[in-house]
Amino acid sequence: MHLSEITHPNQLHGLSIRQLQQIARQIRDKHLQTVAATGGHLGPGLGVVELTLGLYQTLDLDCDKVIWDVGHQAYPHKLITGRYDNFHTLRQKDGIAGYLKRSESKFDHFGAGHASTSISAALGMALARDMKGEKFKVVAIIGDGALTGGMALECINHAGHLPKTNLLVVLNDNEMSISPNVGAIPRYLNKMRLSPPVQFIKDNFEEQVKQIPFVGESLSPELERIKEGMKRLAVPKVGAVFEELGFTYMGPVDGHNLEELIATFEQAHKMNGPVLVHVATIKGKGYEIAENDQVGYHAQNPFNVATGKAIPSSKPKPPAYAKVFAHTLVKLAEQNPKIVGITAAMATGTGLDKLQAKLPDQYIDVGIAEQHAVTMSAGLAAEGIRPVVAIYSTFLQRAFDQIIHDVCIQNLPVFFCMDRAGIVGADGPTHQGMYDIAYLRCIPNMVVMAPKDEAELQRMVVTGINHTSGPIAMRTPRGNGYGVPLMEEGWEPLEIGKGEILRHGDDVLLLGYGTMVYPAMQVAEILNEHGIQATVINARFVKPLDTELILPLAKKIGRVVTLEEGCLMGGFGSAVAEALLDADIVVRVKRFGVPDVLVDHAEPNESKASLGLTSPQMAETVMKAFFQRQLSTVV
Amino acid sequence: MHLSEITHPNQLHGLSIRQLQQIARQIRDKHLQTVAATGGHLGPGLGVVELTLGLYQTLDLDCDKVIWDVGHQAYPHKLITGRYDNFHTLRQKDGIAGYLKRSESKFDHFGAGHASTSISAALGMALARDMKGEKFKVVAIIGDGALTGGMALECINHAGHLPKTNLLVVLNDNEMSISPNVGAIPRYLNKMRLSPPVQFIKDNFEEQVKQIPFVGESLSPELERIKEGMKRLAVPKVGAVFEELGFTYMGPVDGHNLEELIATFEQAHKMNGPVLVHVATIKGKGYEIAENDQVGYHAQNPFNVATGKAIPSSKPKPPAYAKVFAHTLVKLAEQNPKIVGITAAMATGTGLDKLQAKLPDQYIDVGIAEQHAVTMSAGLAAEGIRPVVAIYSTFLQRAFDQIIHDVCIQNLPVFFCMDRAGIVGADGPTHQGMYDIAYLRCIPNMVVMAPKDEAELQRMVVTGINHTSGPIAMRTPRGNGYGVPLMEEGWEPLEIGKGEILRHGDDVLLLGYGTMVYPAMQVAEILNEHGIQATVINARFVKPLDTELILPLAKKIGRVVTLEEGCLMGGFGSAVAEALLDADIVVRVKRFGVPDVLVDHAEPNESKASLGLTSPQMAETVMKAFFQRQLSTVV
Repeated sequence: MHLSEITHPNQLHGLSIRQLQQIARQIRDKHLQTVAATGGHLGPGLGVVELTLGLYQTLDLDCDKVIWDVGHQAYPHKLITGRYDNFHTLRQKDGIAGYLKRSESKFDHFGAGHASTSISAALGMALARDMKGEKFKVVAIIGDGALTGGMALECINHAGHLPKTNLLVVLNDNEMSISPNVGAIPRYLNKMRLSPPVQFIKDNFEEQVKQIPFVGESLSPELERIKEGMKRLAVPKVGAVFEELGFTYMGPVDGHNLEELIATFEQAHKMNGPVLVHVATIKGKGYEIAENDQVGYHAQNPFNVATGKAIPSSKPKPPAYAKVFAHTLVKLAEQNPKIVGITAAMATGTGLDKLQAKLPDQYIDVGIAEQHAVTMSAGLAAEGIRPVVAIYSTFLQRAFDQIIHDVCIQNLPVFFCMDRAGIVGADGPTHQGMYDIAYLRCIPNMVVMAPKDEAELQRMVVTGINHTSGPIAMRTPRGNGYGVPLMEEGWEPLEIGKGEILRHGDDVLLLGYGTMVYPAMQVAEILNEHGIQATVINARFVKPLDTELILPLAKKIGRVVTLEEGCLMGGFGSAVAEALLDADIVVRVKRFGVPDVLVDHAEPNESKASLGLTSPQMAETVMKAFFQRQLSTVV
Repeated sequence: MHLSEITHPNQLHGLSIRQLQQIARQIRDKHLQTVAATGGHLGPGLGVVELTLGLYQTLDLDCDKVIWDVGHQAYPHKLITGRYDNFHTLRQKDGIAGYLKRSESKFDHFGAGHASTSISAALGMALARDMKGEKFKVVAIIGDGALTGGMALECINHAGHLPKTNLLVVLNDNEMSISPNVGAIPRYLNKMRLSPPVQFIKDNFEEQVKQIPFVGESLSPELERIKEGMKRLAVPKVGAVFEELGFTYMGPVDGHNLEELIATFEQAHKMNGPVLVHVATIKGKGYEIAENDQVGYHAQNPFNVATGKAIPSSKPKPPAYAKVFAHTLVKLAEQNPKIVGITAAMATGTGLDKLQAKLPDQYIDVGIAEQHAVTMSAGLAAEGIRPVVAIYSTFLQRAFDQIIHDVCIQNLPVFFCMDRAGIVGADGPTHQGMYDIAYLRCIPNMVVMAPKDEAELQRMVVTGINHTSGPIAMRTPRGNGYGVPLMEEGWEPLEIGKGEILRHGDDVLLLGYGTMVYPAMQVAEILNEHGIQATVINARFVKPLDTELILPLAKKIGRVVTLEEGCLMGGFGSAVAEALLDADIVVRVKRFGVPDVLVDHAEPNESKASLGLTSPQMAETVMKAFFQRQLSTVV
C-alpha cells in the first residue's frame, strides 16, 4: 500500500511492521518535499512519524480521539487522514493549515496552535465520554517543552486525581521546544531517557529481590519501612514524579521503534485511570541536516532538500523587525548591565538569541511559561532591574492577568516587546496578533506604543528602557522593515504620548498607528492625486493618546480616519473615538482595522486585501465615505 | 513586650519561645477581634501566626524580602510591621487593605490578591539580587491550594533548574484553598503530612543502613543500583517530587510548633539553591469555631466572637446574585444532565456548592486552575456537554488566552458566568471586575451580556444554556439583587443581541448595561423632575449590540448617554460609540463608567461616589453637559 491510498487512518490496521516502516518512509519523503517547497514546520513532524503510525495502529479512529498539542508536529497525522492530495497547498491561502483545525478534518478533534492545551482538552473529552456513558479512547500527545506550560501542569494535577477517568497522555520527548528546553521537568525527563527502560528493571525485579539477603529476615520497623520502599525504588524510580501525581508511567520508549511503540500503546490501553507513555524521539528524524540543527530546522522557509539551504529570495530584503529590535537591545544592554531580556522559549523568533550569545548573564529563557515570565519580570523590576519581556502578541495573551495584577496594579516598570503583532500570515488564526491594542490599553498605568518603521522601532526601544515610572508595551509586526536608514547607536528617546505630523492637508485627517502609518501616507498620496488634501499623523502611542495634537486637528478638519492592524473592537480607532466624544468633538470617523472575524492563514497581503486594508482599497473607501467619489483606477 | 509595641519585625529577634508564644496569642486575639468587627479573612491568617513569627525571627527584615502569596493570610504580618494601630480600619475606605500592597508598607515587598504569583515574584527578586551582587534572603510563602495554579508550577520548573539561585519557598499546607483542595499535588502533600517527619528518618538513617546485611557485600550491578537508590528511598521519599524537580525538600514541619519552625528555617537558610520547607498548618488555628468550619470561616462578614454567628444586618436583604444564579442553574441542570458546572476552587463564592450538593456528577472543581478550567470546558463542549464556567471576572483574566484560542477560535459553546463583575468593594484593586467587557467583546464569536436585575439573570442563565452555536458570557455583580419577583421555573430565554426600551422620552437617550440599568432609570427620573425626558434602554448585550434598536433612537434624539460598571476604555460606551460612527451617526455621547484608574478598597457606594457614578451625580453631569443646567438639589 502506498501512503497516497490511505484516506482513513484505520487503513493502518493489520499492516505489518515492515509495511508501516514503508509508510513511514513515504510520510517523511512527502513531508520533507512539501515543506521544502512551501515552508513550514519540519523537525517536529519528522520526529513523530513512527509515534503517529504506532499509536494509530492501536486505535479505532472512527471513535477514538487524538488531541495533538500545538499541532505543528501533526503533518504525518494530516497525511494519513485524507489530506495527502492537498498537502502541497500547506500554509497557503485556502490550503491545508499549518496547525490543527476542527473545520479541516473530522480527525482534528481539537484545534491548536499555542502550546500546553492538549491534556486539558483531552480530559474534558474523557469526562464528557464518561458522563454520556460512551466508550472510546482519548489520547493527548504533548511535547516535553509544552509540558512546562502551567496549564498542562494544572491538568496533570487534576487528571492525576481522577483514577476512574481513562486518559492516555503521550509525552513526545525530543528534548526541545523550539530551542533546547528549560527547567527541572525537562532535566528530569532527560535523566529518565538515560535510564535503562523501565521494562528491564521490571522484568528482573522479582528475581533480584530474591537475591537480597535481608528478604525474609526479621527486621526492625525502620528497616521494614526501608524494605517496603524497595518496590517504589526499583520500579517507579523512572517516572516517580508522574506516579506520585497519580499517573501510571510507562517508558521511556524508543520513539522510532514501531514494535516497541505498538506494544507499549497496547499495554497502555488496557490500564485504568490516567496513563503517561514517555516516548523518546529525535526532532528532525530521518533528515540528517535537520537532526544536526534542530533549532534551525524547527520551521523553515522554502529550502533545497539536498543542501538544506534556504532558497534565496529574488531580491534582498530589508532587515526584519525582530533583528533590528535585537540589535538595538544588545547595544543598549552592553551599556547598561541592569537590562535583562526575558523570553518564554522563543529565543530565535524574538531575536533574543542575539542577546543570549552576546550577554548571557542578561538573558533569561523561562521555557514555555508566559505567566511566570511576566510575574518574574515584575519581581525583577521591583528590585531595580530593567526587564524587557519579548513575547509574541498572541502568546502574551496567556499572561493577561499577570500584566494586570502583578505589573500594572503595582505600576512596575516592565517593558513588553510584542513581536508578531497584527496579521501574521501563514500561521493563521491561532497566531494572529490581533487583540493586544484592545487588551492592553484598558489597563491603568500601561503605556502602549508602536513604531511606524524599523528606525522608529530603535527609538522606541530606548524609550521603553528609559521609561522607569511604570509599564510600557511596544508592538511590532512579523517580517521585514522598509529599509529606512538605521543608526548604530545614539537613538533619541521619544516623548511618551506624543505623535508626529507627517503631512498637512485640510480635507481629511488620517491617523495611522504602527504598521499602518506608511499605508496612511500612501492613502494620502492617492487622495492627493484626486485633489483631496490629507493631514497624516503618526500616532505612535495609543495610550496615552496625543489628544493635544489630534483633537484640534480633528475639530478643524472634521473628517477623521483611523488606520490600525488589529481588532477594531476596542482598538486604536476606538481610542480615538473615545477621545473625540469625551472632548465633545462631534465629527465623522472612519476606522480601518480588522473587523470582528477570524483571519485565516494566507500571505499577509492576501489577508489585507480580503479585509479591504490595502492602500488603494482604503483610499477608495475614504473617497466614497467622505467625498462621494470613486477612484477610477480601482473601480 | 506587647504586640502593640512591635513596629518593626526585627524586634522579634532575641525573643524567647515563650515570649513569641505570647505575641502569637496577642496576634490571634487582635486578628479575631478585628475581623469580627470589620469582616475579612479569618482562617488563613490564624493558621500562619507561628509560621510568621518563626520565620521572621530568622530573617533580617531590613534587607530580607518575604513575598506572601494571595495576601489574605498576611494579617499577622501586617500586625508586626507597623500596622497594629490602624488595624481596626481593615478593608475600609482609606484603611488597611485586605491584601498586600507595596504602597502600604515597605515590608509588603510584592502586592498580591490573586493566587500562585509569589514564587515567580520571589525568583525575579532573587535573580535581581544576584545580578546586583547583593546578599539578602528571598522567601515566598505559598499555600497548597495556590501551588496547583499553573504559574506556580511554571516557576517550580524554572527555579528547580537554577541550583545557584538561593530561594526559600515555604509551603503553607493547610489542606484547603477556600474549599478542600483538588488534585494530585494536594493529595501527595497530604500523604507526606501523614508520614513521619523527615528528620526522624534522617537521624536514624546512618545507623540503620549499617544494619542492612548486604551493605559491604559484593553485589550484581542490578543490586548495586538498587542499593545506590537506598538513599533516595530512605531520605527523600517524603518530598521526592520536589527533590526530583531540583528543590531541597524539608518537612513536614508542625506549623504551630515555634521551636521546630525556627530550627527548620535556620537550617534552610544555610542551604544553597532552591529550598522548599513544607509546613503543616491548621486553618483557623486557635479559634475553635473556625477550625471546625474551615470553609465557612475562610472569610467572614462581621460576627459575634463568642458564638461565631454573623451579626444580622438591620433589614433583610434581597437574595444575592450568586444565590439566584446557583438556584437557577441547579433547576436547569436537574432537567438536563448534559449541563455541568465548573469552578476553579470557588465553589462557595460562585454558588456552585449548591450544584455540588444536589448534582455532584454535574459539578467539577478543578482547583486553582482557571486556564485548565476553560480549555477542559472547551473539550467538554466539543463532545456535546454544556459547560457552565463560573469564575469571577477578575480571575477569568487568567484564562484570557484559553478563551480566545480554545473556545472562541473554535466557536465552541462554553457558557462563562462571571460573578464579582464591576466594583467589588472591600477586596480592592486586585479583585475589581473592571475589564471583562473590554477583554471579551474584542474576541470574535463571543456573545457578551449582563442582566439588569436578578430576574433577568434567571432568563440569561437559560439564554446561555440554550445558546449552543458558540461561546457566551454573562457578568453579574457582587452582592444582592433588587428584590424583584423571581420565578421558580419556566424562564423565557432572551433573544441574542436584543435590548429593551424601559422608558420613552425625546430629549436624551440613556443606554444602561447590567447593573447600570436601574441607575439609568433613576437618572431618567431625576431628569424628568427637571423637565427633561429620557428614553432608557436596557442594552442586555454588549455584543452583539442591538444596533437596530439603538441607532435610530440615537439619530432621532441626538444625545446619547452610556452607563456601565466597568472600564471606559474599550467598554460598553466604546462599543456604542463604534456602532454610531460606523453607521455615520454623528451625535454627542457621554460615557459613564470607570475611568482609567485603579479603584481602591471601599464600600461599593463610596467607590461609585468617588467616581461620579451615583445616580444624582450622573444626572447632574448629563444636565451640565447636554442642557447647560444644574441640579439644584445636588449642587
